Amino acid sequence: MGNLSPVSSAVIAVDIGGTHLRAALVAADGAVIGEVRRVRADFSRLDAAATGDAVVAVIVDRLRQAIAPWLDQAARIGIGFPGYISNGVVMGSPNIPALHEVALAERLADALHRPVVVENDANCAALGEWRFGAGEQAVSLLHLTLGTGVGSGLIRRGAIFSGDQGMALEMGHLRVDWRPDARRCGCGGLGCLEQYASATAVARAYGHGVEAAEVHARACDGDGRAKELFAQAGAALGGAIAQAVKLLDLRAVTISGGMIGAWDYLAPALERAMEANLLPPQQGKVTVRASTLHDHAGLLGAAALVM
Amino acid sequence: MGNLSPVSSAVIAVDIGGTHLRAALVAADGAVIGEVRRVRADFSRLDAAATGDAVVAVIVDRLRQAIAPWLDQAARIGIGFPGYISNGVVMGSPNIPALHEVALAERLADALHRPVVVENDANCAALGEWRFGAGEQAVSLLHLTLGTGVGSGLIRRGAIFSGDQGMALEMGHLRVDWRPDARRCGCGGLGCLEQYASATAVARAYGHGVEAAEVHARACDGDGRAKELFAQAGAALGGAIAQAVKLLDLRAVTISGGMIGAWDYLAPALERAMEANLLPPQQGKVTVRASTLHDHAGLLGAAALVM
Repeated sequence: MGNLSPVSSAVIAVDIGGTHLRAALVAADGAVIGEVRRVRADFSRLDAAATGDAVVAVIVDRLRQAIAPWLDQAARIGIGFPGYISNGVVMGSPNIPALHEVALAERLADALHRPVVVENDANCAALGEWRFGAGEQAVSLLHLTLGTGVGSGLIRRGAIFSGDQGMALEMGHLRVDWRPDARRCGCGGLGCLEQYASATAVARAYGHGVEAAEVHARACDGDGRAKELFAQAGAALGGAIAQAVKLLDLRAVTISGGMIGAWDYLAPALERAMEANLLPPQQGKVTVRASTLHDHAGLLGAAALVM
Repeated sequence: MGNLSPVSSAVIAVDIGGTHLRAALVAADGAVIGEVRRVRADFSRLDAAATGDAVVAVIVDRLRQAIAPWLDQAARIGIGFPGYISNGVVMGSPNIPALHEVALAERLADALHRPVVVENDANCAALGEWRFGAGEQAVSLLHLTLGTGVGSGLIRRGAIFSGDQGMALEMGHLRVDWRPDARRCGCGGLGCLEQYASATAVARAYGHGVEAAEVHARACDGDGRAKELFAQAGAALGGAIAQAVKLLDLRAVTISGGMIGAWDYLAPALERAMEANLLPPQQGKVTVRASTLHDHAGLLGAAALVM
């Protein structure tokens, strides 16, 4: 909860996931005035034959419930959504396959009677970090979210870089391991970054059924295998970031998500691998920072969409 | 030589290299009205202590000589230059180290008494191919030039994508071979694309002191080793292009330079490697074409800078 701000400039921010959604009333300075953290919206439970209409109906229903208290305090709604989005149209969503070429922003605006902007959730996190966090409004900012997968977005001269079909910045699927026995990714590819640097990947590689936070706790207790896995994740990240810098020519990178709790184990290996793979004129010039927004980057970015 | 066009809309296009420059008078439709193919301008012969001023003086002198016949037929000059360029300022040039943070466009405009635009040569080739060649004015076009090295540029919504410091699209230095014994690149890195896919790299790998064109001739004569090297180059290109597509989300790629003579040996391996490394929603949707501009992409792009 932040300070109260003039009601007229506040906006509603929404972060839709595969099983829950989250919403907040956000002031113009990024202060969170009110927040609903977990509204159940389990799209994975929809019938396999569910249509886009059925998914939209669930979203509308859950959204109405979540944002009801704020409807008279905010005119506009910004939404982060896990899918490929081009001008408010969901082109496709790996988590919610029934949504395919659905004009989600328009449908929600009609149902909720106010302007709605929908963007990819990783792009929202990048925008949030750029505007309110460690991104410090850099000319170009690359932001990575290390969670179940690896999300990423690029803010360039204040705008989200979306690509021709809303699929830009698929950093999680950059190949970082070219050995024939590289880890197989859910996308079908081999050696994708998210198989090495996501919280899920670190937990899976550690085994014993523990989550990444517990792997981190064990690293802090001196567990060498745990430390090694974070260093491997950092090295994979550093290599991938260097490739992105060679293509995009940027100087600022921020990272959020569960993995940054282990920053002290990640960061040295990340810096080493990145510097070793940058071109000489870029060496020493790229700053990689941990997010300062905790788990609010996505929500604040969704808010920034409509500010 | 193309058709004559109204003089008022013609522009002067210049392509500056490390040892020679080339210039043309270009009509608005891309027709080359007149051309000077090789004016000696051997910057590598300048004293090691040469200053930026000395280099600029050589450029001005050679340019005056090259474009003298056209000065009364064209008002504007577009120049492709081998270096990192940001808003007409040469930030640095691997081939001409004395040029460091020199406002080349402004200096040349002052000396030649007309508007001058300077851009990176690989970006010019991309712009030329986008506007007049196989790029067909795609929403986003990635263009690669395979010659001594691997140059690349991105045209996005009609504009050159330059990056924060004029260093975007260093595709030639994307890492495509992550084995510890990968080839060492002139940039200091390991496994860079240009060590596998440039004409120089193919000739060097083949050995026997022959150039890439001769390696191609031998491939056509059934030389298995020659065929294999072009297939390797194609596979490296395909892998690198897939990485670029994952970051930039584009659908159109064009390739120019000496290597495209061997297109029939390059292209199948390129397609296979690219498709194998793309995300499923991108598979089958990226078109890679050989340039239709022969060796004029760079010059026509330099012309397009001032059209």
